[in-house]
Amino acid sequence: MENKTQLLSLEETARFLRENNNYLILTHASPDGDTLGSAHALLMILAKLGKNATVICSDEIPNKYNYFIDTACYTAKEDFTVIAVDVADTKLLGSLEEKYSKNIELCIDHHMSNTGYAKRTYLDSSAGANCECIFDIAGCLGVEIDKKMALALYTGISTDTGCFRFSNTTAKTLRIGAALMETGIDTAEINRIMFETKSRLRLQLEKMALDNMEFYFNDSCAVITITRQMYEQTGCKDQDIDGITAIPRTIEGVLVGVTIREKEDGSFKASVRTYPPVDASKICGLLGGGGHIRASGCQISNKYSLDQAKEKILLAVRAVLEEESAGVTADK
Amino acid sequence: MENKTQLLSLEETARFLRENNNYLILTHASPDGDTLGSAHALLMILAKLGKNATVICSDEIPNKYNYFIDTACYTAKEDFTVIAVDVADTKLLGSLEEKYSKNIELCIDHHMSNTGYAKRTYLDSSAGANCECIFDIAGCLGVEIDKKMALALYTGISTDTGCFRFSNTTAKTLRIGAALMETGIDTAEINRIMFETKSRLRLQLEKMALDNMEFYFNDSCAVITITRQMYEQTGCKDQDIDGITAIPRTIEGVLVGVTIREKEDGSFKASVRTYPPVDASKICGLLGGGGHIRASGCQISNKYSLDQAKEKILLAVRAVLEEESAGVTADK
Repeated sequence: MENKTQLLSLEETARFLRENNNYLILTHASPDGDTLGSAHALLMILAKLGKNATVICSDEIPNKYNYFIDTACYTAKEDFTVIAVDVADTKLLGSLEEKYSKNIELCIDHHMSNTGYAKRTYLDSSAGANCECIFDIAGCLGVEIDKKMALALYTGISTDTGCFRFSNTTAKTLRIGAALMETGIDTAEINRIMFETKSRLRLQLEKMALDNMEFYFNDSCAVITITRQMYEQTGCKDQDIDGITAIPRTIEGVLVGVTIREKEDGSFKASVRTYPPVDASKICGLLGGGGHIRASGCQISNKYSLDQAKEKILLAVRAVLEEESAGVTADK
Repeated sequence: MENKTQLLSLEETARFLRENNNYLILTHASPDGDTLGSAHALLMILAKLGKNATVICSDEIPNKYNYFIDTACYTAKEDFTVIAVDVADTKLLGSLEEKYSKNIELCIDHHMSNTGYAKRTYLDSSAGANCECIFDIAGCLGVEIDKKMALALYTGISTDTGCFRFSNTTAKTLRIGAALMETGIDTAEINRIMFETKSRLRLQLEKMALDNMEFYFNDSCAVITITRQMYEQTGCKDQDIDGITAIPRTIEGVLVGVTIREKEDGSFKASVRTYPPVDASKICGLLGGGGHIRASGCQISNKYSLDQAKEKILLAVRAVLEEESAGVTADK
């Protein structure tokens, strides 16, 4: 953590929430299940304590999350107590950054990379999903989890852990999942919405991406490219291609899966997913990006053509593959 | 249950296992993670009790399960005590049926449809995976689950519940998953092997299947076809296409997903996957097949061409869609 924040224990976090009121809960931009689940569960928990609270996000909320977003109005008054949930850095607040980043009273997060921007921080980096932190806070506050809260919390946990598949899943994650199921929620239906439903537009784009998949370095690296033309041909938007970055790494023998997306301004975003021993953050670090060991990203300027951008990424992949002595030779 | 079997409680099952020896554990044919996980975990549990036991299966065991199959030899002697695990009907024993079906001393199963073929049956139809039953039996026997047993049991639970995604998952399933994780096994690696690794041959075949996907009945039914030619062009075998039947139902708005596979003799196997309110077993029942409400299958004779076979299936789909009053009109 670069900044000075006061790290709170679970009990101190619960006490802070009891002692204040009129909460404004901020989620990160491009909201996902975990930030939305955290924010809306926290809102419902605070409502149970008789607190006013409201949730805001810089971006539009995808409709698929509607089932846990309570339309009941908990109007917060002026003089907000600002809380950020699942937000590792104020940059991730999008358009809310300018107005709120300086006066965030409490951050509840699970990212090891949290920059400590808030006055107080409750950080549990062992939690697979931030919703696990919210579950623990509810327990500490003595608020019983009802079905609506459970829908929100389960969604966050399931989406952030790939439904208990990824390496961030712990035994505690599964036990919390069990407790949430016991409220009677239909988890199969949540998972169907989150994981098993693709639009036909998405299907079209996925087919195009599979058609252009290329393999490099003795097939240890697979690359797919999504161009503006593909967006235009299919009518897909960025929000439709959630999870497409997982595809290249699913091919047998692939250690490095790269997805290159052409952005509206002609620049490129590369998403890199790896398997041991390859460090994705090293690959992206060579191009000014970063992230986690298995999932990182970087931007490449629109000075470069698609072929040039791909070449730059492949050079970075090669450098890291060679460094990791993954026993891979560097020819295509 | 059609037949007379003695239904055992958990305690009676444990007592039976303590009182006998020289176990021959049968799995079902076309073995999956749950039957193999059940059999091998049970073998290790029995070994801890000092019992001789061995596992047999009519078919070859796919290599991907090797990580939990102990190469240590627990040779069973003559005079076997025969146990079947995760086998709902003796027909599912494949080539082992003839020799063993009449003298199965104990069946441990979780299928509601179990025919009661064994002398004694421990049946827990609330268990998402049969490995949950084996976990409970180990607890009742006082055998502590070690890492190798946990690998086998977790594999069965994860594969049978789609890693806790499907509607057969219960809070208990998640709690058992948590207990297994606490032995220190790498569940992310298991899930990577089971769910996230596709061969390039499989990728090719999947692309071809996506290319020929057709939509019917106001897009509420999606059909993919896998012909012998596609197998030949890609080099895929039947075992490579595990899970491909899930694809058509993943498209938004699709209630009935149909996968038609052409078999070597020119006949067809149709796999039908549905979402509420459509009953897959009714659709397949109209063509002489059957199965579960959300997943069923049927065979169509090689007297028919592919187009005729498809036509027959679509007529059955239409009949059930109309009957279910799913509000679907019957034009393409």
